Amino acid sequence: MAIKRIGTQTIKFVNPPLLISTASIVGPKEGEGPLGEYFDKVLSDDLFQEVSWEKAESKMTKEAISLATNKAQLKIPDIQYLLGGDLLNQLIATTYAARDLQIPFLGLYGACSTMAESLALGGILIDGGFADRVVAATSSHFSSAERQFRFPLELGNQRPLTAQWTVTGAGAVILSEKGKGPTITHVTTGKVLDYGIADASNMGAAMAPAAASTIVSHFSDTGFKPEDYDLIITGDLGIYGGEIAIELVRNRGLDIMKNYSDCGIEIFNGKKQDTHAGGSGCGCSAVVFCGYLYKKLVEKKYRKILLVSTGALFSPLSLQQGESIPSIAHAVTIECN
Amino acid sequence: MAIKRIGTQTIKFVNPPLLISTASIVGPKEGEGPLGEYFDKVLSDDLFQEVSWEKAESKMTKEAISLATNKAQLKIPDIQYLLGGDLLNQLIATTYAARDLQIPFLGLYGACSTMAESLALGGILIDGGFADRVVAATSSHFSSAERQFRFPLELGNQRPLTAQWTVTGAGAVILSEKGKGPTITHVTTGKVLDYGIADASNMGAAMAPAAASTIVSHFSDTGFKPEDYDLIITGDLGIYGGEIAIELVRNRGLDIMKNYSDCGIEIFNGKKQDTHAGGSGCGCSAVVFCGYLYKKLVEKKYRKILLVSTGALFSPLSLQQGESIPSIAHAVTIECN
Repeated sequence: MAIKRIGTQTIKFVNPPLLISTASIVGPKEGEGPLGEYFDKVLSDDLFQEVSWEKAESKMTKEAISLATNKAQLKIPDIQYLLGGDLLNQLIATTYAARDLQIPFLGLYGACSTMAESLALGGILIDGGFADRVVAATSSHFSSAERQFRFPLELGNQRPLTAQWTVTGAGAVILSEKGKGPTITHVTTGKVLDYGIADASNMGAAMAPAAASTIVSHFSDTGFKPEDYDLIITGDLGIYGGEIAIELVRNRGLDIMKNYSDCGIEIFNGKKQDTHAGGSGCGCSAVVFCGYLYKKLVEKKYRKILLVSTGALFSPLSLQQGESIPSIAHAVTIECN
Repeated sequence: MAIKRIGTQTIKFVNPPLLISTASIVGPKEGEGPLGEYFDKVLSDDLFQEVSWEKAESKMTKEAISLATNKAQLKIPDIQYLLGGDLLNQLIATTYAARDLQIPFLGLYGACSTMAESLALGGILIDGGFADRVVAATSSHFSSAERQFRFPLELGNQRPLTAQWTVTGAGAVILSEKGKGPTITHVTTGKVLDYGIADASNMGAAMAPAAASTIVSHFSDTGFKPEDYDLIITGDLGIYGGEIAIELVRNRGLDIMKNYSDCGIEIFNGKKQDTHAGGSGCGCSAVVFCGYLYKKLVEKKYRKILLVSTGALFSPLSLQQGESIPSIAHAVTIECN
């Protein structure tokens, strides 16, 4: 059997799974941001004709999956597995979508790293010969996340400048054994790191060490150099977390500054949109990838990117109990053909 | 490549991963139950020398993983992936354990189905050639779960007879490409089903349709007959859910009654221990498998079993918003060699 495991944390696919289609649905604010034109659907109202934000989020997930499936000229029963999750307790956005879609479901949780985790495990199912077609889908919603993780929206709390703005959006990717599209070639799975940050309004700082660790392991395992990539994009460290990650990586002898960006920085115009440090949420790297990056890969504007989705693995209860915020980052290499 | 996908929902492993060791840690009540002698460690106090039940749960997970690793004569760095999850919001029990262990981590959530989901994806990583050794681990804790999902414990609410008792326990399984032990041969991944039950104190009824669906798909996909198994064991439908599942399966032309049981029924003596319909929680099928069933497979008392872990995928918020309880079940075939 060909060697699929390289270094300590990385998988190299032998038959790289193809990403044959994607779909993205976002809220009004995301539609007004710099990437607005790249999204398939921009909601005019973040309730999406539902009675709660949680139901709206679930509907976004369901519609993103349906849309991605349609774009690939497939039907829902052609999809053999749904892999994904969201930020809501017990993953109710994804779960209730899976109920309606009736695709065999593997629920995943990695906070905002869930998109890369879903792509990784989806790729593993296909490269391993366990499936021909799977869908990876994640979502978040500003209003459902804020009231769960921080404060009731009605309080109108002032947000510190290090705070990130949870993206309202859902993204879905159809991975296939055959077809046309960019491929996932490598996966680097992260470890849980914790440098002692305990401020839920400074998640970029909490997640930066995990991002840096996974990026360093990725280059060490693969032998790639930062310049082999057109873009190394974390999701979502925001402005401050991104700076910390670049520095932590530099301390390990790698310079990623030239081709580095962050999904949370790309999705909003922080100054105009009052989003402070940037976007966040499972939906952030999902829609930036499914909307913007995927199209740039298909157009061959980017030939090879490293998507490093980052997740803060705390709960409001763990913070109340005096714990700090552990984080994780998973990286996937995506190349156009 | 050999065919690994059979029927619509089932994987047949080509090089069935070996379960080379397991470990189980339980609370005092579980230790007093009918399976008490099979667990590796019975806590005398369910706080496990910690200051909160959540921290105690996380410590159980960490120690179960360490113990299973030791039993396999391995060290933690020999384990390439940790797959698992728990019932707590944002999976804090497993996440904080992963922080201390520093094993690359893939967080999974399937409520009480998480043990089978973890075994399934762990098996996929190994059979697919992506890893040599992984650990699958899940946990639950009566006190952390009850206050999150139902009522403050201090209220002393009366529990209806259909209620199940969340198991305090953690189980860990080391899966390996080589070594000695029973093997996972088949995996049937479930769909999310919902028959409209909205009572969080009657989860057996909510989960029975998902269990029945996965069991029927498993037999349809594999061509096995119920009598091919020494035991078909759900986890955790309890007394009432188990009866419903047997009947739903019978309506589809299969009789599983003769060799059926349920992890939630096995773990407690319901009448003496006042646990009503039986045990539940991610830890229930974990410790019943890791403690009792694994040892029976090693002793060849059982030669082939079907473990069908079942999960209720609701959140307290989804019930408050008027939703019913969707459920899922994943099945794994485990055979001794």
